[in-house]
Amino acid sequence: MANFQDIAKQFTEFYYNQFDQDRKQLGPLYRDNSMLTFESDSVAGGANIVSKLSGLPFEKVKHAVSTLDAQPSGENGGILILVTGALLVDEEQRPMNYSQTFQLLPDGSGSYFIFNDIFKLVFG
Amino acid sequence: MANFQDIAKQFTEFYYNQFDQDRKQLGPLYRDNSMLTFESDSVAGGANIVSKLSGLPFEKVKHAVSTLDAQPSGENGGILILVTGALLVDEEQRPMNYSQTFQLLPDGSGSYFIFNDIFKLVFG
Repeated sequence: MANFQDIAKQFTEFYYNQFDQDRKQLGPLYRDNSMLTFESDSVAGGANIVSKLSGLPFEKVKHAVSTLDAQPSGENGGILILVTGALLVDEEQRPMNYSQTFQLLPDGSGSYFIFNDIFKLVFG
Repeated sequence: MANFQDIAKQFTEFYYNQFDQDRKQLGPLYRDNSMLTFESDSVAGGANIVSKLSGLPFEKVKHAVSTLDAQPSGENGGILILVTGALLVDEEQRPMNYSQTFQLLPDGSGSYFIFNDIFKLVFG
């Protein structure tokens, strides 16, 4: 069985690949009780989250992960992840730094979904 | 009763004030099952965490929080927090950016302890 570090890494790679290819397809990674805080906006539920992400004002996007750290988040088998990285959008040449934290929870069928998702750009 | 946003804000203020004044006194905020990832080091348990933090190679330190976001982390009453901020150590004039995520859990007596703590400096 994969450990939490491996799961965190695999999940994050899959998430950013999917986000960068077609973020409208991220729905299966969220559930009705999932939460997203994106900059200063908070939305709940998979459909609202995908709608929020799909409506972001850029077309092309590329995430580059700099660091990824994970810890078990509780006795329920959850995994807490902190990612720091850089984001390149559209024709912008200068990447923006971001930090993002996820809590993954087991979905009961051997996989995981995103329960918590907080994304912040980092300036300075 | 305070909501999770207020608790997150109060807890984080208390934590950084205590850290900056005397980080050897942070013990009561952790428990035996708490985890800390500080840069690339992982330690578990309150005593080891305080030992790790106390041994960091600086004396004076000042945290300045730029952003703080929180979400409920599950049905157990936990709170997930993502902080981005800047850190000034000793006589260094230039602050370092950092991101830190906490999961707080209720301690059963009306307060909270830190179950998860991941701290990363952000370069770039």
